[in-house]
Amino acid sequence: MTQDTDENLIEALGAIVGAAQVITGKDAEPWSREWTGHARWTPLAVARPANTEEVAQIVRLANRSGTPIVPVSGNTGLVEGTCGEGAIMLSLDRMSAIREIRPEARIAIVESGAILSRIHDAVEEHGLIFPLFFGARGSAMIGGALSTNAGGSNVLRYGSTRHLCLGVEAVLPNGEIVDLMSELHKDNSGYDLRDLLIGAEGTLGIITAAVIKLHPKPLAYATATVAVASLNDGLALLNRLQKESGGAVEAFEFMPGLFMDAYLERHPEARPPFEARHDVNILVELGALAPRDATPGPDGQTPVAAQLEEVLTGLFEEGALLDAVVAQSETQRREMWARREASAEVARLRPDVIDNDVAVPLDKMQVLHERITARALELDPGLTPICVAHLGDGNLHFAGWPSSQDPAVHKAIKAAVDEEAVRLGGTFSAEHGIGLAKQPAMRRFKNPAALAAMRAIKQALDPNGIMNPGKVLPADNSD
Amino acid sequence: MTQDTDENLIEALGAIVGAAQVITGKDAEPWSREWTGHARWTPLAVARPANTEEVAQIVRLANRSGTPIVPVSGNTGLVEGTCGEGAIMLSLDRMSAIREIRPEARIAIVESGAILSRIHDAVEEHGLIFPLFFGARGSAMIGGALSTNAGGSNVLRYGSTRHLCLGVEAVLPNGEIVDLMSELHKDNSGYDLRDLLIGAEGTLGIITAAVIKLHPKPLAYATATVAVASLNDGLALLNRLQKESGGAVEAFEFMPGLFMDAYLERHPEARPPFEARHDVNILVELGALAPRDATPGPDGQTPVAAQLEEVLTGLFEEGALLDAVVAQSETQRREMWARREASAEVARLRPDVIDNDVAVPLDKMQVLHERITARALELDPGLTPICVAHLGDGNLHFAGWPSSQDPAVHKAIKAAVDEEAVRLGGTFSAEHGIGLAKQPAMRRFKNPAALAAMRAIKQALDPNGIMNPGKVLPADNSD
Repeated sequence: MTQDTDENLIEALGAIVGAAQVITGKDAEPWSREWTGHARWTPLAVARPANTEEVAQIVRLANRSGTPIVPVSGNTGLVEGTCGEGAIMLSLDRMSAIREIRPEARIAIVESGAILSRIHDAVEEHGLIFPLFFGARGSAMIGGALSTNAGGSNVLRYGSTRHLCLGVEAVLPNGEIVDLMSELHKDNSGYDLRDLLIGAEGTLGIITAAVIKLHPKPLAYATATVAVASLNDGLALLNRLQKESGGAVEAFEFMPGLFMDAYLERHPEARPPFEARHDVNILVELGALAPRDATPGPDGQTPVAAQLEEVLTGLFEEGALLDAVVAQSETQRREMWARREASAEVARLRPDVIDNDVAVPLDKMQVLHERITARALELDPGLTPICVAHLGDGNLHFAGWPSSQDPAVHKAIKAAVDEEAVRLGGTFSAEHGIGLAKQPAMRRFKNPAALAAMRAIKQALDPNGIMNPGKVLPADNSD
Repeated sequence: MTQDTDENLIEALGAIVGAAQVITGKDAEPWSREWTGHARWTPLAVARPANTEEVAQIVRLANRSGTPIVPVSGNTGLVEGTCGEGAIMLSLDRMSAIREIRPEARIAIVESGAILSRIHDAVEEHGLIFPLFFGARGSAMIGGALSTNAGGSNVLRYGSTRHLCLGVEAVLPNGEIVDLMSELHKDNSGYDLRDLLIGAEGTLGIITAAVIKLHPKPLAYATATVAVASLNDGLALLNRLQKESGGAVEAFEFMPGLFMDAYLERHPEARPPFEARHDVNILVELGALAPRDATPGPDGQTPVAAQLEEVLTGLFEEGALLDAVVAQSETQRREMWARREASAEVARLRPDVIDNDVAVPLDKMQVLHERITARALELDPGLTPICVAHLGDGNLHFAGWPSSQDPAVHKAIKAAVDEEAVRLGGTFSAEHGIGLAKQPAMRRFKNPAALAAMRAIKQALDPNGIMNPGKVLPADNSD
């Protein structure tokens, strides 16, 4: 470790990426806060490399000087995973090429800075989808999605980012480039470094490119918003639909009445889903992959839509659902999705929103919802709880607008939600990652032997501790 | 490290698992060789623990005495992954409970010693499958399947063992038990230790139990044996079937004419698939998950079978296939599978068989097949090449009966096959793992930075090097 001054370091970064691609001071503001505004920091500088070799050079420079590196792509994270006080923020935004799309092989080769919606658009031309969809897809980049193993609304059919990735290229903390750009569906040549890097939030290296899996775009969608009396009734609907359709459910999303109220208040131009207000509203979507399920009959209806209507009608007659609206057009379908995808915007109408990202086994969703609502209201009786959920994969995003101004109360509510999830066999971090924000939960709930193994791996691969220091792994076991 | 004598160690093992569960000398013979007969060794003793705590105690004992531990379950491996000269062979065969099956959640909780076919039978009662099928399923155990990330014939629809596992419990090399028995579909709480342990062949710890994913059993199968002019014609058939069926292909397996010849010679009671002999024979199976695809029409035929026939008839009329037989009964279906599943038995009719386990991207299968056949015949013009393949996932098992007796020629053929696969963007180890047998290829082809990272991880988690030493990671980069 040399005694580099900040100026020397900035000059050295400029020598690697070009002076114009090193950003400091006021210009670095976009890289100095989370988009939620929850966290702020002052980086040493932002470096915007053009290729993997430049990334490797920056990492070697940081090792020599002992400077922390914080990789950042779309900056849409929710767990303070890119806080970089005094760090080199390594922005992947210039490494954004979609290098190759091979429709026959159903893969694309992309660089980490490629924005998800650009990938979506590019592959759609080939009748394919990259089924990683969430609200922030217009700015989130594939590198960040890989680093956090992002989830979203289609995990129940296609898996999370990990399951959509065949290979990665990464710069390890020692500055070495690992080429694991496998396009293979079977490859057992040693330890699974790919999956170790995925979800490590940049603490074990910087993913610079990936081979991603594409899927055929469903030939037809059938989409509905449904009101049921309880989450368990919702899950009975899910099971029925999966059984009848042979597993064609693409998304199954829960929105509570209080969320609908807030959404409609925020968007006075929007229509309510039903005439009556319901507590349990579900967005369900089926996707038809076979032509015979997608070809409209004489009445203009596709078999997949007919099937959805048939199941909904049957359940309605049994009294197992309260109301349902099936989208009759792509416009109506988008209207339904717009509601669901406004969840981050709606929750953050109040900057003091308390949020969580828990998951439990599906059959525990209702009891989890009841318990966390009760616990939160016990701690703050004036709180407005909003629990949007990826119901189909057991992932519930508790959000609450507190009446209490006391940060200790907010913290206690967060901890109580995590605790109830873990008590039901669940996790305190389903799809957002750990960053800094979830470290108390990581300390409290993660298996100690597993934590120790993670620390040993981190120490082995990053002995100087330069890669996104302080994230994922809590410093010790004390709270 | 103490100066334990072998006798002291055996006594100490007896104190942990009971003297009757420590096997030495002649009785240890079943744990002293690979089933193929290719490798033989003399273990110190075989210890058969009854539970995870006993496994942990054995590992701690081995750490104190510096004794190697080699975990073994069904002993059906193919890469000398359980060679254990002087080692404690830790057999998981007594830890064989299927602890729980939860049909609604589509999971089972199993111990590592559970034999695959027992799991298959147990879940079938619930209309479910655990879709990990390969010839050795009657003796292979789930622990070994996880440790090698085993593949098999259904990877194209369901993924390999890794993709069928939600959580694991394992004893780490330091004797600590990690409980990662997650039942969740989303869980981003730290590094992916589960996938690091899966496929590590016991070198980073011993998997003792797992939460495995179950799938609905197809309501109907449609199975055929098809003859085409080339592998590329076969892949065109696969693409057509996937498109028409919406991805319902369960298996797509290639058997060459020379394999058929050998099979029929070995099984004179068996029928040839076609009247004429063909070079490229394919077993294809579709699975219907939705009731409407599985309900027989007035003619008794299911829609999925009708679809298979329709596609085959269409291609036949186009001249794109040479012959096809659709199974008309479960008996005929089993007859078709019996041929394919005899591949290990047939290949080993000659003990000097040269085998490989390579994979390439699908569109490279034909050129791979041509090149490796040519290379092998160049090295041994009298060789009989047999290339059975999981064509649907790009995994080709080259097997050849040599005419040459020269081990150097055999070695050169193996190396040439690996080389051609790697040259085409493929791997030298698709689904069997590395063990000792693939170390030359690992040294030669694996990305050096990746190898170094694997070594660092191994050293960090197993500083005393007791866990299945010498497997997976070659000692250094020299050949």
